[in-house]
Amino acid sequence: MWRRLALSTGVDAGRRSPWPVGSGVLVRINLGLRVVRDSILPPLSSKVVKYMIDSGALFTPLRALSSSRDQYKPIFISCLYGDNGRRLYRVGSSDSVLHVRGGSRLFSRVSAYVSKDDLGDIVGFSGGVINTPYGVFDVVVESVEVIGDLASLYLDLSGGVLLRFVTPAVLSPKVMIPPVKSIMDRYSKIRVGTATLPIPGILFSYALRLWNRIAPESLRLTRPNDKDDIYSYRIAVMGTALTEIIGHRIRPVTVIIGRDSSGRIRKARGFTGYVEMNIHHKATRKAMERSLALANYLGIGRGRGIGLGEIGVLPRKRGEAGLEEASS
Amino acid sequence: MWRRLALSTGVDAGRRSPWPVGSGVLVRINLGLRVVRDSILPPLSSKVVKYMIDSGALFTPLRALSSSRDQYKPIFISCLYGDNGRRLYRVGSSDSVLHVRGGSRLFSRVSAYVSKDDLGDIVGFSGGVINTPYGVFDVVVESVEVIGDLASLYLDLSGGVLLRFVTPAVLSPKVMIPPVKSIMDRYSKIRVGTATLPIPGILFSYALRLWNRIAPESLRLTRPNDKDDIYSYRIAVMGTALTEIIGHRIRPVTVIIGRDSSGRIRKARGFTGYVEMNIHHKATRKAMERSLALANYLGIGRGRGIGLGEIGVLPRKRGEAGLEEASS
Repeated sequence: MWRRLALSTGVDAGRRSPWPVGSGVLVRINLGLRVVRDSILPPLSSKVVKYMIDSGALFTPLRALSSSRDQYKPIFISCLYGDNGRRLYRVGSSDSVLHVRGGSRLFSRVSAYVSKDDLGDIVGFSGGVINTPYGVFDVVVESVEVIGDLASLYLDLSGGVLLRFVTPAVLSPKVMIPPVKSIMDRYSKIRVGTATLPIPGILFSYALRLWNRIAPESLRLTRPNDKDDIYSYRIAVMGTALTEIIGHRIRPVTVIIGRDSSGRIRKARGFTGYVEMNIHHKATRKAMERSLALANYLGIGRGRGIGLGEIGVLPRKRGEAGLEEASS
Repeated sequence: MWRRLALSTGVDAGRRSPWPVGSGVLVRINLGLRVVRDSILPPLSSKVVKYMIDSGALFTPLRALSSSRDQYKPIFISCLYGDNGRRLYRVGSSDSVLHVRGGSRLFSRVSAYVSKDDLGDIVGFSGGVINTPYGVFDVVVESVEVIGDLASLYLDLSGGVLLRFVTPAVLSPKVMIPPVKSIMDRYSKIRVGTATLPIPGILFSYALRLWNRIAPESLRLTRPNDKDDIYSYRIAVMGTALTEIIGHRIRPVTVIIGRDSSGRIRKARGFTGYVEMNIHHKATRKAMERSLALANYLGIGRGRGIGLGEIGVLPRKRGEAGLEEASS
């Protein structure tokens, strides 16, 4: 059944990619930023570091990656956060701006899949004062974690998994549209909005697609002769049909992205919280033991390049009590 | 694509059904129960009225229906509730029993799809004192709503829908397994547990299957030449892929069902709360404008015969603000 379907989107092998498919390394850069003067951060505070990268002031090897409009680009730029770890972003219902005092210290994480040749440039950044439209920041690299190539990424999810959505995850349910040309043609353009619930197959499909966009041929998650989208559809359906959702605490949230070119406020609807689940479909679980290990660094869903969809992936031990049960 | 798949389960046309497929009427009976003496209700208080029906003391025409083990039988017996409307059932974390004082008044609703010939027997019940293992109750029929045949059931969902889960909805995600024989054979037996989130396609698939089990040929929701399960699969997938989840407040909950024959406590995991959504797939929306109108009376998911899965279905007006936005 799966093999007969037509492929309608996917990687164009002939196109030049702004990232090294299959031959790079995954790194996570932990930044410290001292706020030089009292400042008002943008509603999505990740834009401070994104600006530094896009303008060429910080990590020039990441510039093309950060500027790419590809939905599955392998870069994550976190929102800024203070000592308490709480990510700074504005939600729809709040009037208050993100005001930070001069002298205070903030942090950010940037994770990306980069060419080995660029590692030196990244590690070699010696820090400095950087001007942005949002204020002046004294930036240092606190540490660079070199996670390595994708072969090393693996989490044992045989006892289940706890996913924490640290910043709003913005997910389109349309990743579950069957990859049949007539259906894709008819529905892929219509506006559906987002699903403010962690539907297993939709999470899995996003994670799988991201993995497959950077994995070397030997680690690609497909079946022999299957195309990307068909496998991703299979994971979306079987991953929903055979995943137990043990517990959760999910809050829908509207996050302010910024203003568009005509000055209107842009918003996105997503959710934060956690979900605990058990993936009973073996092929899906095996795929997620790799893909979610990657999403642990690169996030999930839309807006990962501006700090949305930051997640924590925690394997559960077999038979472990749910969070809710354990706390009551 | 959908037509090529093999049907693996479905209605056995040759079997005698305990309900009148296609030719019945939908009724909702509102009961009043005066508690004669201080009593301890069963953990799932619906079992009081279910006992009355199953033992033949109340509404004999509903006896076969209530006793049927069919997952999609067209009967709903609500939990008992007092003046505040709160349904009485015990959740996993609570130690307290359901104690009710002698003289207090409780209510229950029983909805069923019955033969027109049986209406007289139901409406004719003049009330009386009924003994049960859970206490003695003075039962009166407060009112009988005759909703009519299925042709009259319709809700306009073009502006979206608000679903309230009044009692825990217990849903198996397995209703989304593709109706392909090899896949069904392999996965339909494995234990998956429940999905404690209102995944749109899973809700829709349950509602559609219930509709199709009692609808006359002319109102069956299938495509020409499609079998039941294939249409239900289509609704499950497209209904998830093209449904916007605007907002929600969902709480996972473990409900105590009772004790099994060896005295062990049986529990089920479900959820209560509400979800607001917009169904953008037209065929799914059209099917739900009928099926959810039925589920409004007969509930959704497992255990509808014992009061689980009681829902309220409320059409939204086009452009109406979400519950959350409206209240903040």
